[in-house]
Amino acid sequence: MEAGGAQGEAAQPLLIVPAAHIEEETAVAPSINMEIGEVAAAEQVVTPWVVSALDGVIDYDKLVDRFGCQRIDAAIVDRIARLTCCPPHRFLRRGIFFAHRDLDTILDLYEAGEMFYLYTGRGPSSESLHLGHLIPFMFTKYLQDAFKVPLVIQLTDDEKFLWKNLTIAECKRLARENAKDIIACGFDVERTFIFTDLNYVGGAFYENMLEVAKRVTFNNLRGIFGITPEDQIGKDPYFRMTRDVAPKIGFQKPSLIESRFFPALQGESTKMSASDPNSAIYVTDSSKQITAKVNKYAFSGGQDSVELHRKLGANLDVDVPIKYLNFFLEDDDELGHIKKEYEEGRMLTGEVKQRLIAVLSELVARHQRARAQVTEEMVDAFMAVRPLPNMFG
Amino acid sequence: MEAGGAQGEAAQPLLIVPAAHIEEETAVAPSINMEIGEVAAAEQVVTPWVVSALDGVIDYDKLVDRFGCQRIDAAIVDRIARLTCCPPHRFLRRGIFFAHRDLDTILDLYEAGEMFYLYTGRGPSSESLHLGHLIPFMFTKYLQDAFKVPLVIQLTDDEKFLWKNLTIAECKRLARENAKDIIACGFDVERTFIFTDLNYVGGAFYENMLEVAKRVTFNNLRGIFGITPEDQIGKDPYFRMTRDVAPKIGFQKPSLIESRFFPALQGESTKMSASDPNSAIYVTDSSKQITAKVNKYAFSGGQDSVELHRKLGANLDVDVPIKYLNFFLEDDDELGHIKKEYEEGRMLTGEVKQRLIAVLSELVARHQRARAQVTEEMVDAFMAVRPLPNMFG
Repeated sequence: MEAGGAQGEAAQPLLIVPAAHIEEETAVAPSINMEIGEVAAAEQVVTPWVVSALDGVIDYDKLVDRFGCQRIDAAIVDRIARLTCCPPHRFLRRGIFFAHRDLDTILDLYEAGEMFYLYTGRGPSSESLHLGHLIPFMFTKYLQDAFKVPLVIQLTDDEKFLWKNLTIAECKRLARENAKDIIACGFDVERTFIFTDLNYVGGAFYENMLEVAKRVTFNNLRGIFGITPEDQIGKDPYFRMTRDVAPKIGFQKPSLIESRFFPALQGESTKMSASDPNSAIYVTDSSKQITAKVNKYAFSGGQDSVELHRKLGANLDVDVPIKYLNFFLEDDDELGHIKKEYEEGRMLTGEVKQRLIAVLSELVARHQRARAQVTEEMVDAFMAVRPLPNMFG
Repeated sequence: MEAGGAQGEAAQPLLIVPAAHIEEETAVAPSINMEIGEVAAAEQVVTPWVVSALDGVIDYDKLVDRFGCQRIDAAIVDRIARLTCCPPHRFLRRGIFFAHRDLDTILDLYEAGEMFYLYTGRGPSSESLHLGHLIPFMFTKYLQDAFKVPLVIQLTDDEKFLWKNLTIAECKRLARENAKDIIACGFDVERTFIFTDLNYVGGAFYENMLEVAKRVTFNNLRGIFGITPEDQIGKDPYFRMTRDVAPKIGFQKPSLIESRFFPALQGESTKMSASDPNSAIYVTDSSKQITAKVNKYAFSGGQDSVELHRKLGANLDVDVPIKYLNFFLEDDDELGHIKKEYEEGRMLTGEVKQRLIAVLSELVARHQRARAQVTEEMVDAFMAVRPLPNMFG
């Protein structure tokens, strides 16, 4: 397979955009990132996520309006369910993947029996993933199962080499370790190609990099990514401006599907950080660590005293245990029940946290079991350069 | 073979720098190009070559002094002859390759039985080469024969795609056509690896590109190459700063050997140009075309009338036929005789041109015969990725 190569008829791409970390998002969602630049100019802050989260609550409606993407509304969710004959993922039911660009084009193609493929990725800069990193892969796994389509996962180890204080060997090792976590999400090896830039750049892929680079100026970069004259030249993020550049070089403009921000334990106004292990739950955490982190750090929307809580109830808009359950508790009825009881003061933060600890411990333990089964041979199989079914006509 | 890859012990590189075109020179001689930047700032002109040639004569001593490279003097030429047991090439005998950096290091290594290799290249932007393009390859062929060392020839088709109005397919085709002209110079396929960036970038080579890119800033580029914010990002000339960056990433600093400028037919103050076919002799020119171009366009240092010429003689410093004979007439005695007769007015420009036409016609015809023998299979053999003898320990 030559991803994005010069084949005649190629499947239409749908990019899955993890909003959990701006870093990963920019890696696959060029348009959003350009939008960040606009907001930064207008409001003197770094990202729209941070803008909107200054009071602890992100206004996603404002984001959608400002950036002119489309909402994933009930009609789209229903259409996906009908077309795929699969119940919609909780990330769809609950508006966690909340916005898109041209997703309807993808659904039209699918309905007409035409090809499309999924694309997502990750910059492998740390040893172990946290839950925020898993979200796009969990959702992509659902999309692949539901639509039975090819999937390309790009690991931008070259980018991490340029931006981080890591050697090439270390970046390659991290990419391979991260690939194991990704494979542990359950992707279908027959339909999935995982590649690392350091191993795969060359040939048709390098040609596409050049076609893109020829159409992006240093001024474009400065405006979009805030690159300064002191930055190294390697920071050219060739692959980030897909929607702008693809049509200029004869490819289809990819569709995008974008997720909400997955908050740090301390709340939406902070960011999960690799340098602060208490800001996130990692897929390598033990049940004991999960228990301690949730109990100690998960920001509560409950009241200061039990008495007051019984009277006023919890503020769900800022409550992290509820936000996490919204991402990971599968049962809609149970979630609704917990939210109601908690909001009306009948349930205490400690009880909600206990439920969350159980949910996360089970999810993480399941991931760890699956991860332990991933062999080097399996990584090789996912990374083998080969044709994927229905990728190219 | 992985050129510049991560092998333990690698041969020391010697870069052969064609000064005929600044473009090609910058492609392999990073230091010179940085020097150009300095002069440009000091004297408000584009290149030192042009500075010095404003009166029709390039002052190479001034260049060597200003840029702190070393002269290739008689002692070095003698040493090369002694070490290789080969008569020195006329390009050495006549100071055409006139300057170097750390060439003595290479000769010390060779004398001690250590490895080194030759490196040169070309940006394949035009269909057929002119004589100026051939000079570095002719000299490299001599060096390879004399020292029996590996040779790497890089064809920067990716660079040409970015800078010229050419498609990728056209750049690839031009690279392959140019490779045939290079092969026609007589290189030893057992010791020569020719590669094109579009075919070869990837793996260890891409890793080295990143190691270099991480150590060069946009400011460096702006200073050295005059890149502006409107330039496309693809114009990062990763491979041009070898001597500065190589030691930073654990490689030996390459030695350089630099040639004089090969003048346009109209003289040293003009530049051979693909858009003006009458400015140069091409390797595809017929004997008739050569005759017409030399007779009509080769700038003469002779006097305006025969009478005056007999009296004053020719000014050899600006005479193009003499300059061309200096490059291409092998016989030192005959060259000395012609120069003396012409300078003292006994020989006329027309007679010198007749001799030059014969020399060039023979050289070009020989090239055309050799070029006609180069098959696609031979190109494939030169481009095959394989170990070269004595390239890596």
